[in-house]
Amino acid sequence: MKELLVIKIGGNIIDDELALLAFLSDIASISTPKILVHGGGKLATELSTKLGIETKMVEGRRITDEETIKVVTMTYAGWINKSIVVHLNALGITAIGLSGADANIIPAVKRPVKDINYGWVGDILTEKINTTFLSKLIDDSIIPVIAPIASDGNGHLLNVNADTIAQSLAEALSGLYDTTLVYCFEKKGLLSDVNDEASVVTEITQEDAEAMKAKGIITRGMVPKIDNAFKAINNGVKTVVIGHAGDIKMIAQKQKGYGTYIR
Amino acid sequence: MKELLVIKIGGNIIDDELALLAFLSDIASISTPKILVHGGGKLATELSTKLGIETKMVEGRRITDEETIKVVTMTYAGWINKSIVVHLNALGITAIGLSGADANIIPAVKRPVKDINYGWVGDILTEKINTTFLSKLIDDSIIPVIAPIASDGNGHLLNVNADTIAQSLAEALSGLYDTTLVYCFEKKGLLSDVNDEASVVTEITQEDAEAMKAKGIITRGMVPKIDNAFKAINNGVKTVVIGHAGDIKMIAQKQKGYGTYIR
Repeated sequence: MKELLVIKIGGNIIDDELALLAFLSDIASISTPKILVHGGGKLATELSTKLGIETKMVEGRRITDEETIKVVTMTYAGWINKSIVVHLNALGITAIGLSGADANIIPAVKRPVKDINYGWVGDILTEKINTTFLSKLIDDSIIPVIAPIASDGNGHLLNVNADTIAQSLAEALSGLYDTTLVYCFEKKGLLSDVNDEASVVTEITQEDAEAMKAKGIITRGMVPKIDNAFKAINNGVKTVVIGHAGDIKMIAQKQKGYGTYIR
Repeated sequence: MKELLVIKIGGNIIDDELALLAFLSDIASISTPKILVHGGGKLATELSTKLGIETKMVEGRRITDEETIKVVTMTYAGWINKSIVVHLNALGITAIGLSGADANIIPAVKRPVKDINYGWVGDILTEKINTTFLSKLIDDSIIPVIAPIASDGNGHLLNVNADTIAQSLAEALSGLYDTTLVYCFEKKGLLSDVNDEASVVTEITQEDAEAMKAKGIITRGMVPKIDNAFKAINNGVKTVVIGHAGDIKMIAQKQKGYGTYIR
């Protein structure tokens, strides 16, 4: 099977134009076929504030009312998505910016209201991901750049977690490609000592992860990322790595000493 | 050659949710392969106002500074584009929302500064339109929905006139398809008496158009639309019609009595 990289880039890169340009330049130099999934960074919150829309977050998820789904669609699928595409174009790379709604690539359902009403927040239907369409793009040497917005099939856009999109895409495409899922963030990997960048954990099993959660080494923000990573491994993704965006070239080559490998 | 419709929808439909839903429902019922090109309507101006960004228009074109290209990218390529896609999805139609930057479909150049500095406004390089990619989508029964944003190839997004995009796409695709370009707006067609909706001109030659401009029958807002229409006909587009969005089904079937045909 051909190789495929599914790379998630987080808000810290999105919010820093120079870091983003450096990262995209690295991406352009990696020949392995790839999909980029991006988050939203601070822009949606900044735009909401300017428009007088209150930002409500519950456990890191944005409560998404009618006004907020407009704001996140504009920022994620509009400005951020097209900015990434236009920079890749300038580097001679053909990229295509898509939301999950486009060509029905990522069907989703509105999250049912239990204790919390998240509003227009979606949960992905991984088994319905349009792998046929995505693989045509990939095999045409086009990089899909995916914004974390999806469709409920009933005429509503949904705000979907970008980490989960990356995980679901990697899972769905594992039948067609030898898939590596990379979560890029602002650390060199999972750190056994959060204050020591040299304390990168080279590889981690689910057992290790549970122990580190219990000890408070895997902290709040990392918990869903690690959980997504293990879900991906348990659902057929061959390789999952968490590492620094600045190390993407080394991670793409699976060089030793870069990032934390999920086992 | 297979038939293709290139349909431009204007701000009057974009701004009216019920009219847009009715229009998209008609679109879903037309079996001819098609591309939709949409404008921006009032949303960009409304968002600019809310953000305290002054809107400057010169001869109907928006002066597009650094802040304004963000606003138009967010509204055109973000909210409006994805709203159209999600509604078509709900009607069982596979649509894909794209800007001209995506997959390099519509390369453009920044308009040179002469008397007026339009800022990040683009002129389309029609001969470089990515017809290969567009025709793959069309032949896969996917409707491309195009937002009037393009790339300069140097990392900048450009604001491009939607009427001109429709004209350029129709021209570029005329080598591959028996192409009909339809400009949808809020009138039944070109009216010989602007106050009489029954006075639709059935067909018009360039000579007629020049005479009607001289007499002030073709008024200011219609001048660029008519000019684009004649450019399309003169550059190989087989059929060009200007008509009411509500008549799109009849226009698609080329029924007599609907719209003004450019000869």
